[in-house]
Amino acid sequence: MEQAAAQQTTDVTTLVEDLARAGRKAQRVLAGMPTADKARALQSAADALRAAAPQILAANAADLANGEANGLTAALLDRLRLDDKRLEGIAAAIENVAGLPDPVGQEIDRSQALAGMTLVRRRIPIGLIGIIYESRPNVTADAAALCLMSGNAALLRGGSEAVHSNRAIAKVMGEGLAAAGVPAEAIQLIPTQDRAAVGAMLKAAGLIDMIVPRGGKSLVERVQNDARVPVLAHLDGICHTYVHSAADPAMAKALAVNAKLRRTGICGSMETLLLDAAFPASVEVVQALLDGGCEVRGDARAQALDPRVKPASANDWDTEYLDAILSVAVVDGVDAAMDHIARHSSHHTDAIVTADQQVADRFLAEVDSAIVMHNASTQFADGGEFGLGAEIGIATGRLHARGPVALEGLTTYKWQVLGTGQTRA
Amino acid sequence: MEQAAAQQTTDVTTLVEDLARAGRKAQRVLAGMPTADKARALQSAADALRAAAPQILAANAADLANGEANGLTAALLDRLRLDDKRLEGIAAAIENVAGLPDPVGQEIDRSQALAGMTLVRRRIPIGLIGIIYESRPNVTADAAALCLMSGNAALLRGGSEAVHSNRAIAKVMGEGLAAAGVPAEAIQLIPTQDRAAVGAMLKAAGLIDMIVPRGGKSLVERVQNDARVPVLAHLDGICHTYVHSAADPAMAKALAVNAKLRRTGICGSMETLLLDAAFPASVEVVQALLDGGCEVRGDARAQALDPRVKPASANDWDTEYLDAILSVAVVDGVDAAMDHIARHSSHHTDAIVTADQQVADRFLAEVDSAIVMHNASTQFADGGEFGLGAEIGIATGRLHARGPVALEGLTTYKWQVLGTGQTRA
Repeated sequence: MEQAAAQQTTDVTTLVEDLARAGRKAQRVLAGMPTADKARALQSAADALRAAAPQILAANAADLANGEANGLTAALLDRLRLDDKRLEGIAAAIENVAGLPDPVGQEIDRSQALAGMTLVRRRIPIGLIGIIYESRPNVTADAAALCLMSGNAALLRGGSEAVHSNRAIAKVMGEGLAAAGVPAEAIQLIPTQDRAAVGAMLKAAGLIDMIVPRGGKSLVERVQNDARVPVLAHLDGICHTYVHSAADPAMAKALAVNAKLRRTGICGSMETLLLDAAFPASVEVVQALLDGGCEVRGDARAQALDPRVKPASANDWDTEYLDAILSVAVVDGVDAAMDHIARHSSHHTDAIVTADQQVADRFLAEVDSAIVMHNASTQFADGGEFGLGAEIGIATGRLHARGPVALEGLTTYKWQVLGTGQTRA
Repeated sequence: MEQAAAQQTTDVTTLVEDLARAGRKAQRVLAGMPTADKARALQSAADALRAAAPQILAANAADLANGEANGLTAALLDRLRLDDKRLEGIAAAIENVAGLPDPVGQEIDRSQALAGMTLVRRRIPIGLIGIIYESRPNVTADAAALCLMSGNAALLRGGSEAVHSNRAIAKVMGEGLAAAGVPAEAIQLIPTQDRAAVGAMLKAAGLIDMIVPRGGKSLVERVQNDARVPVLAHLDGICHTYVHSAADPAMAKALAVNAKLRRTGICGSMETLLLDAAFPASVEVVQALLDGGCEVRGDARAQALDPRVKPASANDWDTEYLDAILSVAVVDGVDAAMDHIARHSSHHTDAIVTADQQVADRFLAEVDSAIVMHNASTQFADGGEFGLGAEIGIATGRLHARGPVALEGLTTYKWQVLGTGQTRA
């Protein structure tokens, strides 16, 4: 029995390594491919997705039916769901990526400082990118498009919940790419849902150049603990909005409701609202959230704002609800707000609402998150909104790329030294 | 006995974590410190090093005596040795860093794409950097200066061979910094040589933001295997020079001799020479190296060039000698040379010598190393030579920073969103 399991793991490891080698081979073609050829291939993939809408939606319906039968939460079902509009959004996002400036080959800088030689730092693709993700099928297309446009190959491992949707999207995109002359192995979906495949990807140092995990905390923590391949980590989005005493009450109400309730299932949605004790309109803000259908869990002072506010547990301050639930604390001043954020933020996105520019400047400088906002909804934390095209994830770590990651974050660089026989003295 | 060892490890872990917390606290002061104040502090540290030259050289003499008694190789003793000139070089390098443009606070880019809001990407320090290094005491000063100028705190763990030198340099620098108002904890040397301290650093996720290992392959591999903290890896320097058939013979000879013999103990020194079978002056190049005191180990065709060439073993092609030893292979054309490099290079620095621009362009584009050179000595692979000031290391990985890493590579960025109440539609 154990021997059989070990054999199966070996087989899965071999499968993943073979796919990685095929991906690396395809990537060598992509690395030198002109921008226009990559864009044409992506357009072909977008066209193929539109043409195959019925089969993709049928595959998605199968995933949704399974998800409902398996008792997925409303938030997870929302992440999983495709419809004509979302599918058109996916195709349009691919076209958008195809139209983005190609970072590959760009000179980052150039100098003559080196013994009269020319020293050029030039962007190149990273290589083979492994993407490990959970329930959102649009990741299959977004990640593939971003990897391809930046000259990388992608090895995708989606979640079981979306397996039919992911296979349909990957198959259709691959056909579209191949029709435009890109090797089909540039974009590969791991064909098995065996969990050993994730382990094999994480250990594939030298074969996979970077892993991007996109999913819940347990997935990302597993990836960070087990990976021998560099990880561009996308931890959860425990995003805060702090309403300062000098906030405009109507703006604070509108931002809080939008940040929490516009879409509760995205990582940029607000999970904790910090109300300054000196802000005069906290009752109205909390009531607007409650009236909008949000469950509010508060500390003692927040509970005093409205009888519908439930008591928050210690865990609430560290919870990404991804649902119409919000934790609310009343704090005394910007320092207390920043202390709370330093302790509980996932360093994804944190916002301040205030008319006081000096307080805003301190918050923007001192809050150590990938995205800091002044008088804006945390729901804007999105690579598409940031003008990057789609996004492969929002990096909450500190190295390589931070916040929304798109084409530039999928490149590295090399130094080229152009000499005429110089020796070092 | 085992219980005592476990207790000792716990104590070392506590020590490292306490030092890390103190470093993080000091870093918050550095993060917002004006450029001029950081520069003044570094100048003060450089002055202190010069004034303390006798005590630093005395400490170094103790390390050298121990090293000789312990049978360190000539290459390692060369790495360890300080003299007036090298100490002046260390002080001058600190001054050079103090005069470099400060990346902290720089805007990387700015747009209005986001719903009419201003979106700024701004450089910030990484935080607390752990440096784990071996025998070169100048790393203590270089690393400290680069971390400090980029607003980071440094937690240094030097090798046992250089313990007296490192302690003297760190103590004197710390006094110089403190005299200029920088918290002494901004630069800390781990006070124990217990190997458990390295393990504790590698596990200190959340307390140390990045680890930079500088040393031999076994150190770097241990760090990469055990680290739960992101690593900016500096693997060994197995650097190649490929002499193409169209190389100028005199240039090829000068470059080969310089790349190998100028200083054999640095990571940018050439370890393998690839001679094209169609290059007419291979005998002269090999003889110049042999006459210069270099041991040459060759494949069958290289052995035929001179009777003094010894046979190379399979291991030689993957060996960083750091000594006056060179492996030489005769190859058939640029593709064979690039194949050899792809198999054996550590992706540090690889060079081509040729008068054929098209062949050079292919080499520069297709060889996947951090630094690729045309008609130049690999010994130029150095952050100081590249105009970066000193260097914290030469990164051979693909993420975050690649090649020589100085101030910019020690920063990350945050996105600042400046709104006026925008909600997402």
